[in-house]
Amino acid sequence: MIRWLGDDAAVVRARGYAVTSIDTVVDGVHFRRPQLTGPEIGHRALATALSDLAAMGLGPGGEAYLALGIPEGTEPEYVLSVVAGAGELAAHHEFTIAGGDVTRAPALMLSFTVVGWTDDPGEVVGRDGAEPGDLVGVTGTLGGAGAALAVLDDRATGAAIRDRYARPSPQLTLGRKLADAGAHAMIDVSDGLATDARHLALRSGVRIELSLSDLPIASGVAEIARQLRIDPGRFAATAGDDYELCVCMPPNAAAEIDSQRLTWVGRVLDGPAGVVFTDADGELSGFEHSF
Amino acid sequence: MIRWLGDDAAVVRARGYAVTSIDTVVDGVHFRRPQLTGPEIGHRALATALSDLAAMGLGPGGEAYLALGIPEGTEPEYVLSVVAGAGELAAHHEFTIAGGDVTRAPALMLSFTVVGWTDDPGEVVGRDGAEPGDLVGVTGTLGGAGAALAVLDDRATGAAIRDRYARPSPQLTLGRKLADAGAHAMIDVSDGLATDARHLALRSGVRIELSLSDLPIASGVAEIARQLRIDPGRFAATAGDDYELCVCMPPNAAAEIDSQRLTWVGRVLDGPAGVVFTDADGELSGFEHSF
Repeated sequence: MIRWLGDDAAVVRARGYAVTSIDTVVDGVHFRRPQLTGPEIGHRALATALSDLAAMGLGPGGEAYLALGIPEGTEPEYVLSVVAGAGELAAHHEFTIAGGDVTRAPALMLSFTVVGWTDDPGEVVGRDGAEPGDLVGVTGTLGGAGAALAVLDDRATGAAIRDRYARPSPQLTLGRKLADAGAHAMIDVSDGLATDARHLALRSGVRIELSLSDLPIASGVAEIARQLRIDPGRFAATAGDDYELCVCMPPNAAAEIDSQRLTWVGRVLDGPAGVVFTDADGELSGFEHSF
Repeated sequence: MIRWLGDDAAVVRARGYAVTSIDTVVDGVHFRRPQLTGPEIGHRALATALSDLAAMGLGPGGEAYLALGIPEGTEPEYVLSVVAGAGELAAHHEFTIAGGDVTRAPALMLSFTVVGWTDDPGEVVGRDGAEPGDLVGVTGTLGGAGAALAVLDDRATGAAIRDRYARPSPQLTLGRKLADAGAHAMIDVSDGLATDARHLALRSGVRIELSLSDLPIASGVAEIARQLRIDPGRFAATAGDDYELCVCMPPNAAAEIDSQRLTWVGRVLDGPAGVVFTDADGELSGFEHSF
């Protein structure tokens, strides 16, 4: 960092290639302010942006720039708590909040631009490299964020883990490991596995076959899905907001991955581009949030 | 550009140091949608961000990332026209709109993150380098944007040049020339010269003495300032939105600058940090827009 906040722009030392993503969250659209603390809102906004870098196989380290929109009358202490929540997550992943812009806005709004660096652009994993014969895996568990949100929304009651929705963990370290191991394609699971796997399938021009019954369902999800009258597997595949990674990789590379960190849930085939579930009727689309 | 829109992040080749600025405009806060065309809104949003890079002495060339918030029911053609207006300005200054994020928002909102590159961070001009003995100059003319806005707001009538407000020109090429010529400090005039010169003075720890009667007043401004019952020089010093550059440089370097491009309006002195006008009573602060 050569120049810091307070000048017209930030100056930072670069490496070979910049990998940049931008992600915006707006109160009432992507979250509801009364459901989250200030630090959780900041954490979650930065996590969604960093998750995109994780899906490219970038490891920890880089810069984040924040455009913050705040409604008139917002307490300065509240704004600082939002920024502090983001700052804590940034530090955890070796990111520096290197600049920003604060403005008045009709709703609380955070837009994070995050920048990671790589010396070899060939190491960056896109959405377009999946090949027939690849296995399809997902990190961690699915459905936990959706279940937590259902409880926050009073649509269900149960032992959902609030942090799965309120403080998602961008998988930067694991994403880097998967890239190193030879991942062909990756995406982060923000809109639900059914939707995000379709992005991979369409960009790679392949058919992805997934098994609902193989999905790693987060604890507490089955109970909440039943209250919502949705099959737990279907809920886990469509609820979104988990910010886990979906990866396609060849079987020999897959054999080297720690099975504690990844669950194999399907395979890549030739055929019309798209996603099919072997044990669900018809196409699954994104679960509609109540707002 | 290695990867483009449609992946999780954009990948671009880097050079030594990244210079990054972020700037957000919100309908009803920074502009009023009925007063501008879609392309003008896009142009103006990107121009305000690029102007920050101009003030660092960066020349043309780089990337821009757009976070776009659009209210429900906005016509897609309108959104495309906003982006097209930004795209045209970007191309003019050799910038690529390399990525972005579109989301629903309660008001039309554009946040641009712009990135320029330099091999030598010593060539970047900050706000903190002004020295006693420097001359203070401003590029172009002042007050034109404020006068155009007064006409758009129906606060005045007259021959103000609408484009001065609607399509400001970021001074990237001239900023680079001033940096090369040995500028000690620069800032872009977004909040009015009185306010922006104070930023320079405070960051540099110097006293800046300006002369209202020496300010280069844009055509049509005097007439409109009189309707608003404001002295034309005072209006030019406080109205803002001109996106010209204010520069401090030593007299020997100043002698080499084409006087067609720059007007000398004051000097840097030792003494308590701040701005004084030799021909105005008291301190001038930013002109309050009507919204």
